[in-house]
Amino acid sequence: MSGTRAQVETLARAARASAKALALANAGIRTAAIRGVAAALRARASEILAANRVDLAEATKGGLAPAMLDRLRLDAGRLEAIAAAAEAVAAQPDPVGETLETWTRPNGLRITRRRVPIGLIAIVYESRPNVTIDAAVLCLRSGNACVLRGGSEALRTNLALGAALADGLASAGLPTGAIALVPTADREAVAVLGGMDGVVDLIVPRGGPGLIAAVTATARVPVVKHDAGICHIYVHTAADLSMAEAIVVNAKCQRPGVCNAAETLLVDAVVAPRFLPRLAETLAARGTETRTCPVASQLMPGSRPASEEDWSTEHLALILNVRVVADLEEALAHIARHGSGHSEAVITTDTGAARRFLDEVDSACVYHNASTRFTDGGEFGFGAEVGISTGRLHARGPMGARELTTWKFTVEGSGQVRA
Amino acid sequence: MSGTRAQVETLARAARASAKALALANAGIRTAAIRGVAAALRARASEILAANRVDLAEATKGGLAPAMLDRLRLDAGRLEAIAAAAEAVAAQPDPVGETLETWTRPNGLRITRRRVPIGLIAIVYESRPNVTIDAAVLCLRSGNACVLRGGSEALRTNLALGAALADGLASAGLPTGAIALVPTADREAVAVLGGMDGVVDLIVPRGGPGLIAAVTATARVPVVKHDAGICHIYVHTAADLSMAEAIVVNAKCQRPGVCNAAETLLVDAVVAPRFLPRLAETLAARGTETRTCPVASQLMPGSRPASEEDWSTEHLALILNVRVVADLEEALAHIARHGSGHSEAVITTDTGAARRFLDEVDSACVYHNASTRFTDGGEFGFGAEVGISTGRLHARGPMGARELTTWKFTVEGSGQVRA
Repeated sequence: MSGTRAQVETLARAARASAKALALANAGIRTAAIRGVAAALRARASEILAANRVDLAEATKGGLAPAMLDRLRLDAGRLEAIAAAAEAVAAQPDPVGETLETWTRPNGLRITRRRVPIGLIAIVYESRPNVTIDAAVLCLRSGNACVLRGGSEALRTNLALGAALADGLASAGLPTGAIALVPTADREAVAVLGGMDGVVDLIVPRGGPGLIAAVTATARVPVVKHDAGICHIYVHTAADLSMAEAIVVNAKCQRPGVCNAAETLLVDAVVAPRFLPRLAETLAARGTETRTCPVASQLMPGSRPASEEDWSTEHLALILNVRVVADLEEALAHIARHGSGHSEAVITTDTGAARRFLDEVDSACVYHNASTRFTDGGEFGFGAEVGISTGRLHARGPMGARELTTWKFTVEGSGQVRA
Repeated sequence: MSGTRAQVETLARAARASAKALALANAGIRTAAIRGVAAALRARASEILAANRVDLAEATKGGLAPAMLDRLRLDAGRLEAIAAAAEAVAAQPDPVGETLETWTRPNGLRITRRRVPIGLIAIVYESRPNVTIDAAVLCLRSGNACVLRGGSEALRTNLALGAALADGLASAGLPTGAIALVPTADREAVAVLGGMDGVVDLIVPRGGPGLIAAVTATARVPVVKHDAGICHIYVHTAADLSMAEAIVVNAKCQRPGVCNAAETLLVDAVVAPRFLPRLAETLAARGTETRTCPVASQLMPGSRPASEEDWSTEHLALILNVRVVADLEEALAHIARHGSGHSEAVITTDTGAARRFLDEVDSACVYHNASTRFTDGGEFGFGAEVGISTGRLHARGPMGARELTTWKFTVEGSGQVRA
């Protein structure tokens, strides 16, 4: 057995063994542990930032791209934001033990569906250190043990954050092994976690296509993916065009490198001549390239023709595909063909059209008159998120503490036997 | 490409394409389709029973075991029970579109979590023809298309039942391809379905360990397993011993070959001398063998010593393991070590002990003073069941129509963009 395998199996088994203590602790103890994490992040700020500086220096030397360096970087403000997010999760209602429904059968059996933790959750992610704390405190809130495996370039930072997590657990009298950080950059760790059927109850890969593929190729435990977003904005004939412009600009330009940014704009032919020329200027002023269908090309000077591939590409950059459609029907068909089921928006004052769009678009999040950028655990009010599920099973959309639970049935009788 | 692969892929793609019509139909249409299935089962009774007689004759010739022949056999009474189960599902509340929760964010966004169908569900099962109808009508109730793959020995029966399913869909104006029966006995069909990532949204294997292993070994789509049950009954010091005896006999003897039958009895040492000798007589009179720990051996004449393997074996036969334990603590530890997370029961008049058992036993269904045999979709009031999930992800315990749904978020705004 490799050293990595032995190491990962040992810490995962220890975390699974600690899951019961987390699940059976009362909500106040879990809250105290999360608050303890926030306090420890502040108390340990200087050592966390020092560890992050070493990671940054190594990553710079190794030639990591500037965008990735920015994701990796912590400073006092970002660390405080991470502690504040932990406190927001501490303020969330505790989901464990919640009665989801209860009913009595004709034979007198009283059946109750109760929310319970999943058990041990493995989360595999990339360079952003905030994920370490967000994921850990959401697992704490939901009574789950976890194994965290961040990017190798953030290993020192994550181990320093891990000390704050251990402080938080210890301050509430919970076992520190319940939140385990994989202390090695060896990629084999991911395959080991995905193969621990019966110990790891769920694995959540959060990252680019390479990471997702690495996890799903080998996983024998259930996977909930945080995958790509090819998000659409559809500007309907009856749209408020100023609102539409503000939403398109926000959805494309405010943070183009994230999964809930828009990739494609669909515009009804009736309003395209009034909408697209003005939008072309606004987007050009923001340094945004447009890739257009033949009709939109005529209305957007400086655009270039979209290839067939563009319609199915997550650009993650200041590039927007634009297509003029005949009507709602054609917009729905385009989204069904090219969308990734993440987030889509309709801009219209026509409530009937809006209703049809909300009903018929088969995506995790469907918006009426708002930006797709709101698909986010924090923006939904979950305090933080483990990721955004683009799958359909177990959880769909932003995953907060409740999405990390399952249920059990308790059945109370007075001697009933089956006839 | 093999003929089986082409055939299965074609019908699965057609079913996935029909899923939208099922999902967007209103509840009344889905109800009409299910009632139409029940009516068609009665109208086609003679041809269904004739097809079943041919399957039975072939299976007898092929040397199928008597227990399996009994599972395969239909008669007028069993067929009527299947039609009645369909009608019970028709009477269930329609889950599609149900608002699970709705809230408004400080920025005015109104977020609603709505229940929606999963899409296309593949169900792979063995010889019981009732599963064909139960699974199909639960998929209909929940707005899902499905692909059904029953045991090869039941192929003619299932195709005859499939004609009734098509009648039901057609009678409500729904596409008949939305419920597809795999019309071949070729085992490759299972691997093909499990590999159709992006077309098949969920695969449910319902059967013995061989079937489960065959599906999970190759599946790339999410799997919810209907797996084995090693169910326990724990008789606490404060048990009503008459009630305990009735429950043990029911849980073991009423139908020993099913997953919710009990395999192991745990008895507190204080009551064992009063309880076990009497139970030994009752079980012996029912032809039930007992496999005992050294202490229980003294109290149960005619028992044989349990091997270490017995405690972790699903006997599926009139064999009961019996162990005397010191207390609740030891019972909980035994169940944590040997249980399969299916169903366990505590028999006691002590509500504190009962509460602790219900809280701490980590199984899909946990009973107080009732038989484990109630873990069943029909007994829970779901009308029928697709299976009993022994996994923790997505669904746990009996799976009815609601367990075949996921959700989407709709977000209604007035021009909100993200800061």
